[in-house]
Amino acid sequence: MILHDFALAPNPRRVRMFLAEKRIMVPRVQVDIREGAQFAEDFRRRNPWSTVPVLELDDGCCIAESVAICRYFEERHPEPTLFGRDAREKARIEMWNRRAELDGYVPLADAVRNRLARFADRAVTGLPSGFPQIPAVAARGLERYRLFLERLDRRLAERRFLAGERFSIADITAFVTVEFANRIDERIPEGHRHLARWHG
Amino acid sequence: MILHDFALAPNPRRVRMFLAEKRIMVPRVQVDIREGAQFAEDFRRRNPWSTVPVLELDDGCCIAESVAICRYFEERHPEPTLFGRDAREKARIEMWNRRAELDGYVPLADAVRNRLARFADRAVTGLPSGFPQIPAVAARGLERYRLFLERLDRRLAERRFLAGERFSIADITAFVTVEFANRIDERIPEGHRHLARWHG
Repeated sequence: MILHDFALAPNPRRVRMFLAEKRIMVPRVQVDIREGAQFAEDFRRRNPWSTVPVLELDDGCCIAESVAICRYFEERHPEPTLFGRDAREKARIEMWNRRAELDGYVPLADAVRNRLARFADRAVTGLPSGFPQIPAVAARGLERYRLFLERLDRRLAERRFLAGERFSIADITAFVTVEFANRIDERIPEGHRHLARWHG
Repeated sequence: MILHDFALAPNPRRVRMFLAEKRIMVPRVQVDIREGAQFAEDFRRRNPWSTVPVLELDDGCCIAESVAICRYFEERHPEPTLFGRDAREKARIEMWNRRAELDGYVPLADAVRNRLARFADRAVTGLPSGFPQIPAVAARGLERYRLFLERLDRRLAERRFLAGERFSIADITAFVTVEFANRIDERIPEGHRHLARWHG
């Protein structure tokens, strides 16, 4: 088993945090996406969608997408649970993970990719070129991300973790999003004290 | 148990298709999002993020987000499975469901909301106003959606269903996306015959 990883990218970090919580060690290789290694033919055979991370099993079966890889490990190593124990908890964690991803991570990634010079002609993840940056997308992404932080702060006023009293994959997604925002010098605003406590 | 539903919206449809496959009947109420009912106080108590669908359990616990609701029912009624049986199948289904959602549904929803007159000042889901449409977002969303259809057609050339030989939630997400595209008169292109076979 090999994890195709890249130390500087946010989505692989979700998997690394997940594995660390579970105390699972997996051999890793680095796919340097800054050099375009995700578009090389040998990588595209593993993941035609040209994204990291990818988990390659011993028979060559490849699982792309951070949350899919996490789910694989959750099934193989259920403790400590990060996706929830019963129907209700699993559903609540899925709900919060989706909110963190769709209303936090996705808008922030829009802001990053439509702003940093490095992504000038490839503002869409997994596509090598032909998608120029749209400044209005960067601005809207940032506005939505800030709104997400307000909602996060309100939620964390009433619960220790995002989905309740137990740390879960939803916290990992939200944490990685907040860290990713450093790339565009966006910090947790003053006054979001519940969020600051949770971020630690 | 009550499902807060809206017959004309794509995300509630994912849940309805899921329940139909499982042959589960759930009492439903309609939340008319065209009239802004998702922003009314009584609905926001159930889901402060102002989206449908929401599943309200008998003790008042509310689960928002279509996939979270589906997962609740998968745990309670495992057969027929729509999220997969073992670690590998679960991971592969999650991967394809994410691809369908993040590379299909999300770009298409961007195209719809940034184009139809009805969403003039609320181009972001779950927010009542203050987000004007950005024509460049509509155009990029549509371009990404068409690229997604090409990838879908290639995938369905080699497999009966998106995640393999078994119908799964990934097919539901992709199907609802293709249907949603009708709103902007976007059809399956001629020549995508594998996609056309799958769509039926």
